[in-house]
Amino acid sequence: MNTAHSDPVTLILVSLLIILSAAKLGSIISNQLKQPLVLGELVAGITLACCLCPCLQSSLNNDAIQVLASLGSIILLFEVGLETNLKEMAAVGLKSFWVACVGVICPFILGYFLSGMLIPDLTSIAKIFMGATLTATSVGITARVFKDLNYMHKTEARIVLGAAVIDDVLGLIILAVVSGIAINGNLDIASVGLISLKAILFLGLSLGLGFLLAGKVIKVLSYFKTPGLKLSLALIACFSLSYLAAQAGLATIVGAFAAGLILDEIYFKDYDGEQSVEELIKPISYFLVPIFFVITGFQVDLSVFANQEVLIAALVISLAAMLSKLVSGWAFSGSGLNRLIIGVAMIPRGEVGLIFASAGKAIGVIDDRLYAITVIVVVLTTLIPPIILGKLINSNNSLQRHPEGAKRP
Amino acid sequence: MNTAHSDPVTLILVSLLIILSAAKLGSIISNQLKQPLVLGELVAGITLACCLCPCLQSSLNNDAIQVLASLGSIILLFEVGLETNLKEMAAVGLKSFWVACVGVICPFILGYFLSGMLIPDLTSIAKIFMGATLTATSVGITARVFKDLNYMHKTEARIVLGAAVIDDVLGLIILAVVSGIAINGNLDIASVGLISLKAILFLGLSLGLGFLLAGKVIKVLSYFKTPGLKLSLALIACFSLSYLAAQAGLATIVGAFAAGLILDEIYFKDYDGEQSVEELIKPISYFLVPIFFVITGFQVDLSVFANQEVLIAALVISLAAMLSKLVSGWAFSGSGLNRLIIGVAMIPRGEVGLIFASAGKAIGVIDDRLYAITVIVVVLTTLIPPIILGKLINSNNSLQRHPEGAKRP
Repeated sequence: MNTAHSDPVTLILVSLLIILSAAKLGSIISNQLKQPLVLGELVAGITLACCLCPCLQSSLNNDAIQVLASLGSIILLFEVGLETNLKEMAAVGLKSFWVACVGVICPFILGYFLSGMLIPDLTSIAKIFMGATLTATSVGITARVFKDLNYMHKTEARIVLGAAVIDDVLGLIILAVVSGIAINGNLDIASVGLISLKAILFLGLSLGLGFLLAGKVIKVLSYFKTPGLKLSLALIACFSLSYLAAQAGLATIVGAFAAGLILDEIYFKDYDGEQSVEELIKPISYFLVPIFFVITGFQVDLSVFANQEVLIAALVISLAAMLSKLVSGWAFSGSGLNRLIIGVAMIPRGEVGLIFASAGKAIGVIDDRLYAITVIVVVLTTLIPPIILGKLINSNNSLQRHPEGAKRP
Repeated sequence: MNTAHSDPVTLILVSLLIILSAAKLGSIISNQLKQPLVLGELVAGITLACCLCPCLQSSLNNDAIQVLASLGSIILLFEVGLETNLKEMAAVGLKSFWVACVGVICPFILGYFLSGMLIPDLTSIAKIFMGATLTATSVGITARVFKDLNYMHKTEARIVLGAAVIDDVLGLIILAVVSGIAINGNLDIASVGLISLKAILFLGLSLGLGFLLAGKVIKVLSYFKTPGLKLSLALIACFSLSYLAAQAGLATIVGAFAAGLILDEIYFKDYDGEQSVEELIKPISYFLVPIFFVITGFQVDLSVFANQEVLIAALVISLAAMLSKLVSGWAFSGSGLNRLIIGVAMIPRGEVGLIFASAGKAIGVIDDRLYAITVIVVVLTTLIPPIILGKLINSNNSLQRHPEGAKRP
C-alpha cells in the first residue's frame, strides 16, 4: 500500500483485473447455459455495480478505463465490418432488404410511441433515440445462433444475415442522424436533411475512396515487409475513419464499421505468412470488447426499477421490441420459407443496441431510466430468441425430413 | 470541429493515429536499413518531440496514452517471459552464468563511477540507477540479430541467449532494489537487505506457487470451453502478478516477466483449436508496445545536449557501456569459441534499458539529462552491434568453412 501507487498504472491494473475476471466468469456461465457470451459480460457488469465496495467502484469510473471501453466498441464495430461482405449482401437480394426495412420501421415507430406513452415526461429526442435503439439487429448474435445450431447454409439464415447487415447500416445512419439532432438540439427538417446528407456523404465518400484507394495503398506498402505492418495498417484505417466520422458529426463507431467494410483480405495477399486481419484483430477484441460490455452493464443503475413505472415500461418495451421484429418475417412475398424462424432470428438486439444506448448516454439524451430500460430490452431480446429458435429449427428439421423421406449425405 | 469532441475518445484517436503512424514509418525505415524495429520507433518518438506542433504534443501527454504505454511495457516483458524457457536456460549451464555476471558487474561499476565523474552534481541514487541501467541486455534484440543472421543454433548464440536471460532476471532484481532505495530515499544496508529480500521473496513465491498451481488451475478451467478464455487467463495472470509486484514494492514489469516465465504452453494443451499464448499476445503487443517506445522517445528532451558536458557524457558512457559488456566474452574458461562474437552480442541494451530509464524517471531519480543520456546509450548500443556482428559472423563462417573443407547439407 505504501509505495505501490508511485506507478499510476497499478490503479488501472486493479480495474482491469476486476473487469476481466468478472467478464470471464460471466461468459463462462453464459457459455455453460448455452447463451451468447455478451449476456454474461453485461450481467457481470450489472453485478459489479451492485456488489462491489465503493472504493473499487470509483476505480472503474477511471478515465483510462472509459477510453479502453470506447476503444472496445470501436474495435467491435470494426470486426463486424470486417466480417461483412458487401457482395454477399447484394446476392441475398431484395428479400433481405424488405425484412430489414420492416425490421427497422416497425420497432422505430413502436419504440417512439410506446416510450412516450409509458414515460410521459420524455423529450421528443429521447423518444426518437428509444425508437432508434430498437431498430438494431445484432449480426454477431444472430450469426452465432445459426452457427451453433448448424443452420448457416439454409435460405432463412442467409436472408436474416443479409437483413441484419442492412439493419446495421440503416441503424448506423439513423444513429448518426439522431445523434446529430440531439447534439444540435433542434428537430427541423433542414437540419435532419443536413445530418442525413452528412452521414450519407461520409459513408459514400469513405466507402468510395476506400474501395478505390485501399487496395493500392496496401499493395504499395507491402513492398516494405515489416513485422506487424498488416495489423498496424488495419488499426490506422479503423482509427482514422473513426476520427473522421466524429469530425463529420457522426459516431466514431460508424467510421470503424466503414473501415471494416472497406478492408478486404484480398488487399493483403502480398503480406505472406501472416494471419488474416480478422485473426489479428481477434485477440485485441478479446481484450477490449469485454471491457466495453462490463462497463456498459456497470453503468446500469438498478435502483431506477424501484420505480414501478420504469419496470413496467422495460417489460412492455421488451415485448414490443420482440413483436415488432417478429413481423419482419412476413415482409416479402413468395413461399416455402419458415417466416417464423426469420422473424425470431431478427429479434436479438445485442451489442449494437447497447452502443446506441451508450452513445445516447454520452450525449446526454438518454437518462438513467431509459438507459436501464435499454439494457433490459437488450438482455431479454438476446436471451429469449436462441431458446425459441432452437425449438423452431429442430421441429422444422423433423417436419422437412419426414415428407421428403430421403436422406441426404 | 464543432461536435467532434463530444465523444472524449476522439482526442485519444488523434494521439493513437500520430503514434501508430510514426511508429510504423520508423520501423519501416529501420527494417529497410536492416536495423531492429525498436530503433525506428524510438527515433520516431524523438522526431515527434522536435517537429510536432505544440497542440498535438499536448495530446500525446494525455493520461490515457500514458496508461496505454505502461500497459505496452507490461505486455512486452510478459512476452519476453513467455519466450524464456527456464529449462533451456539451465542447460546452457555455467558459461552463460559467468558471462551474465561479468556483463552485469562491469557495466554497473563503470556506469556508477563514470556518470559521477562526468556529471559531478549527481546524487548517489542517480549514479546507482545509471549503473543499473547499463546492466541490462536485450533478449529480444540479441535473439533477433542471431535469427536474422541464421546463427541461432551455434554454441555462441546459446551462451549469449542464456546470459541475456539471466541478465534480465538479475537486472530486474537490481531494478527492484534500486527503485526501493530510491522510493525510500535511504541507502543503509538494512533497507537494501529488506528490499532484496522482498524482491527475492516475491520472485520465489510467485514462481514457486505459479509453477505449482498454474497448470492445475488452467486445466480445471479448460473444462469450460469458452472462446477467448486462454487469452483472458494469460492477461489476468500477467496483470495480477504485475499488480502484486507493485504491492511488494517492485516494478510492475518484474511481475509481468514472472507471469511470462510461469505460463507454459503445455498447461493449455486441453484448449484445443486455439493459437498459442504467444501468438494470441502478439497482436496486442504489436498494438501497445510501439506506443511505449514512441512515448519513450517522445520524452527525450534533446535540448539537454546543448550542454556540452551532457553530450560528452552520453558518448563516453555509450563507449563504456559497449566495452564493459564486451569483456563478458572472456568470462569463462575453455576454448574453441569466438569470444568476440559473444561479447559483441551482449552489447544491445534495447527495451530493458529503456524500461529502467522510464521507471527511474517515473520515481523522479533520473533527471532529464540522465534520461536523454540513457536513450542515446540505448540507441547507440542497439545500432552498432548488429553491424559489427554481421561482419564477425560472416568472417567466422568463412574461417570455419575453409579449414574443414567439407560441405554440410
